[in-house]
Amino acid sequence: MSQPSIITLLTDFGLEDGYVGVMKGVIAQINPLSQVIDITHQIPPQNLAAGRFCLMNAYDYFPKGTVHIGVVDPGVGSQRRGVAIRFVDGYLVGPDNGLFSGILQDLPPIMAVELTNPDYWRTPNPSSTFHGRDIFAPVGAYLAKGVPLQVLGDPIHPESLIQFPITDVEFRDHQLRGCIQYVDHFGNLITNIPPQEIAGKNWSIVVKDIKIPSGKTYNDVNLGELIGLVGSHGWLEIAVNGGSAQSKLSLNIGDPIEVLF
Amino acid sequence: MSQPSIITLLTDFGLEDGYVGVMKGVIAQINPLSQVIDITHQIPPQNLAAGRFCLMNAYDYFPKGTVHIGVVDPGVGSQRRGVAIRFVDGYLVGPDNGLFSGILQDLPPIMAVELTNPDYWRTPNPSSTFHGRDIFAPVGAYLAKGVPLQVLGDPIHPESLIQFPITDVEFRDHQLRGCIQYVDHFGNLITNIPPQEIAGKNWSIVVKDIKIPSGKTYNDVNLGELIGLVGSHGWLEIAVNGGSAQSKLSLNIGDPIEVLF
Amino acid sequence: MSQPSIITLLTDFGLEDGYVGVMKGVIAQINPLSQVIDITHQIPPQNLAAGRFCLMNAYDYFPKGTVHIGVVDPGVGSQRRGVAIRFVDGYLVGPDNGLFSGILQDLPPIMAVELTNPDYWRTPNPSSTFHGRDIFAPVGAYLAKGVPLQVLGDPIHPESLIQFPITDVEFRDHQLRGCIQYVDHFGNLITNIPPQEIAGKNWSIVVKDIKIPSGKTYNDVNLGELIGLVGSHGWLEIAVNGGSAQSKLSLNIGDPIEVLF
Repeated sequence: MSQPSIITLLTDFGLEDGYVGVMKGVIAQINPLSQVIDITHQIPPQNLAAGRFCLMNAYDYFPKGTVHIGVVDPGVGSQRRGVAIRFVDGYLVGPDNGLFSGILQDLPPIMAVELTNPDYWRTPNPSSTFHGRDIFAPVGAYLAKGVPLQVLGDPIHPESLIQFPITDVEFRDHQLRGCIQYVDHFGNLITNIPPQEIAGKNWSIVVKDIKIPSGKTYNDVNLGELIGLVGSHGWLEIAVNGGSAQSKLSLNIGDPIEVLF
Repeated sequence: MSQPSIITLLTDFGLEDGYVGVMKGVIAQINPLSQVIDITHQIPPQNLAAGRFCLMNAYDYFPKGTVHIGVVDPGVGSQRRGVAIRFVDGYLVGPDNGLFSGILQDLPPIMAVELTNPDYWRTPNPSSTFHGRDIFAPVGAYLAKGVPLQVLGDPIHPESLIQFPITDVEFRDHQLRGCIQYVDHFGNLITNIPPQEIAGKNWSIVVKDIKIPSGKTYNDVNLGELIGLVGSHGWLEIAVNGGSAQSKLSLNIGDPIEVLF
Repeated sequence: MSQPSIITLLTDFGLEDGYVGVMKGVIAQINPLSQVIDITHQIPPQNLAAGRFCLMNAYDYFPKGTVHIGVVDPGVGSQRRGVAIRFVDGYLVGPDNGLFSGILQDLPPIMAVELTNPDYWRTPNPSSTFHGRDIFAPVGAYLAKGVPLQVLGDPIHPESLIQFPITDVEFRDHQLRGCIQYVDHFGNLITNIPPQEIAGKNWSIVVKDIKIPSGKTYNDVNLGELIGLVGSHGWLEIAVNGGSAQSKLSLNIGDPIEVLF
């Protein structure tokens, strides 16, 4: 058999407890040659917005055919479905709760199944609190090994997959109203405003009565000063040269911002 | 030669300093094809109880023959022994201080050696503070490559291996007294009470005069409410649906709990 | 083609956001068989001193030919150069800002290029804020695959590479004055004083009017007591047996210390 596909993991499990190591052990039991790459395991507990954002910004940098296992799963053990989804770039495996909806709004699902076939689980009696170990990791390992999607369970209508609700950008005269959709490790505040909205225009950001100039790179302002720019994720973001915009502005996910032209 | 065995690492080194990367480099110098899986490196510094718990709950999810290197080693540089142990599922390498005793109470050691042969160390003059790099990582890498256990040092009696003391569960009429043995990333409080004790019974947990109902899954109670259930590790645990039981109850490792029938 | 070289990553990106996972995805797109080892991603944001220290203490434990990608890059998007450097043990890839100068003071560069050839970037239009993803990860992946250094860009004089300034040790009669150059996860305080300065002498460390005795290993003092010793990195360090010297002394990087004979 050829080299198995790469598997990525994104969870809110943290790295303290060995939960992630156990998922990798389960994958290795099924296929010791699998290459597993961590996207992150430090999604704030049960924060679907952050999980959706990180996965949506990562999948495109992996080889075609990659199997992405995502587990931010506040409803584990309830009636929420476990799913596997084929899309043009590879596969998605995890709970059906909107975690994958950021990817799927760009690249619609080609085929989806509910994970109802216990032959591809670690055990027919999975824990009611750790489907990452007992269902999603083994299913992802089998997909990466070449097992076809359709044997993993019952087909479902892709339109029935849960969408995570996101705030729309409001357009007004010479003004856009959006919000912070993510705060990263450096304290960069990433908005929900895509770069095409400001293309070719002079723009600035206003938050908390502070007008923040725009630029191309952190060094376009002095050390310690605020700047608005198109970040590496492809959205407008607010940063501080050599510092943390989060510390300076105390903004959080969902807080409103305005862009002026 | 065939594919080397998988190596796992569990330490209290944290991820900030490069100590873990250096252990992986040492392994790669001996065998560039080794597959190394992190269980965790965030055991609280020198906390053998937490290290023992995480390793005991992880080993069973890895392929047969896996080499587990564990380094929680407050006595590094003292007279404590370094050991390598064969058990039915694979190998254990690290300090002889009880870190492996959770595994070995379930699966007794088959053979054990003290690591006295410097031919399998990184250097005959190891650092007195970092045996993980200079002794345990290279020994683990050689074991994974097929080097036989007995050449690594002098045989020791498995019964002489240090046992980590654990609190027993007390049985009374319609009551069990146990304790919290681990607190995880989500704030779940994992007790030392195994599920067979409550099988087929109606039960609840009492801590700090609060009576906590039992259920099967987090969603059996409302959001924010406490629940007792059999957790994914296979012990009774106290959780909060969508929250942290640790934040709500402020309990720590060793604190007592009661189970009522 | 033979097995590609190992790639290491050292950054200040943290593990929360998926930035590191994305770099590994980019590497896997170029060479799915690459083995990538994390040195650390938790260098304090933009702290070149800590990044230089960790890399300088790690490189020597990896196989010959390893490609080390280092990204602590406060000047990303400015005129600072991106570079790839060949040295006797392998390759270094990252910003030209002194991050590699700790390694290069021991092992001088053999050849260096500025990364001016976009054929080996992820895209000819790299983000102005994430060269780790768009330039350094792909360049490192190509080097590990065997692409020769000289095709990656214009040659530069190795002497023109930026040196990170470090504090010298001052020698006086029966006294050395140095400083703390790093604080690790355990709270060990690592000085900039190399062990040859104290070889064969009786010595102690004085900080904040406290005289700290010297020893060989943590256990040479009682639990909770301070000790000076030659640490696993090869410098004099201040530690506490079973505890944190940082918590006890509240010293930080750059704070002065004295060694008395």
